[in-house]
Amino acid sequence: MKDKILAESAKLLWKYGVRTITMDDIARRLGISKKTIYLHFSDKEDIVYQAVKHHIEHEMIECDRVMCLDMNPIDEMLLVSDMMRRQADAINPSLLMDVQRYYPKAWAFFLDHKEKRIINDIKANLKRGVEQGFYRSDINLDTMARLRVELVQLGFDDRIFPNNKDVKDVIATQEQLLHHFIRGILTEAGFATYNERVKSFN
Amino acid sequence: MKDKILAESAKLLWKYGVRTITMDDIARRLGISKKTIYLHFSDKEDIVYQAVKHHIEHEMIECDRVMCLDMNPIDEMLLVSDMMRRQADAINPSLLMDVQRYYPKAWAFFLDHKEKRIINDIKANLKRGVEQGFYRSDINLDTMARLRVELVQLGFDDRIFPNNKDVKDVIATQEQLLHHFIRGILTEAGFATYNERVKSFN
Repeated sequence: MKDKILAESAKLLWKYGVRTITMDDIARRLGISKKTIYLHFSDKEDIVYQAVKHHIEHEMIECDRVMCLDMNPIDEMLLVSDMMRRQADAINPSLLMDVQRYYPKAWAFFLDHKEKRIINDIKANLKRGVEQGFYRSDINLDTMARLRVELVQLGFDDRIFPNNKDVKDVIATQEQLLHHFIRGILTEAGFATYNERVKSFN
Repeated sequence: MKDKILAESAKLLWKYGVRTITMDDIARRLGISKKTIYLHFSDKEDIVYQAVKHHIEHEMIECDRVMCLDMNPIDEMLLVSDMMRRQADAINPSLLMDVQRYYPKAWAFFLDHKEKRIINDIKANLKRGVEQGFYRSDINLDTMARLRVELVQLGFDDRIFPNNKDVKDVIATQEQLLHHFIRGILTEAGFATYNERVKSFN
């Protein structure tokens, strides 16, 4: 039952936002009583925390799967855009900002994951790209890896991009930022590959 | 006397940081009593606010002067890096972060200036660059102008770039971010001009 509550809660929270969804909404959706939910979770904060944790752990498995494919570093970078488009309907654009503002425990888990995992994955991508001649050798790997992570967060921040009214706008902003980031690190050889890939992506 | 206090205070605050400098330091530097300072300023917060305000207003005049020169948009963008290197000795890397954290009134003035002025100046630069064929026509001017402003702030943030130990590191980070930003928006014609300029800058 706990897994089922977590899975359905996550769907609701991602889609409608962590501020909108109440314990009543979750109970109604599952056709169970709130009392049953409280058997497994102490409060809404606990559900949000466990849903974020579960999502991140699942995402890590996905990432490992992609990296096993040993693809071109540029393709790997572009995959983010692909993933975002596929998940568009399921994710509320204010999710990241709301978790940051109102759910400190879940946010701390995300920050820790960002420090330990995401930055290293991006750094590994950048390092491979430089070695294979796609990315410029004069980029600072630490600075650029940190920049890439921060850009994703910026792109979700409606204080910085007030024109982001709905999911479509947020994705457009994220894609501008992603493509701009990639272009900024490419060598001439990298540009040739990138231009080819972008053509086939659209 | 007020102008003199403000000018000397600004030098101290910029160089040693707004947290380090006390009213005693300012009085000592000017060889006056604190009582004299309190004739003109209500407290340290007031000095920081007026120093930030004066600095920004002075900077606006400088910016107007540069823009009157009607220079190439790429050169105009690269000037930031030039200015930063010249001011390196005078500015404490934690200044922007400390004002944000501890001086809400001065920070509000900066934010207002950012909204009303900096973003528009950058947007004008981007627009000219697109019109003149240096920048890609598919960039979103609003998104890219906002990104450029946020990058400067990010580059000063020691929580995001913990390797920024001193002014030299901060400048190196800012230059990575600036050049990466410019590269990300260039057309092929833009790259030719940029490569030429970068050669002559070093």
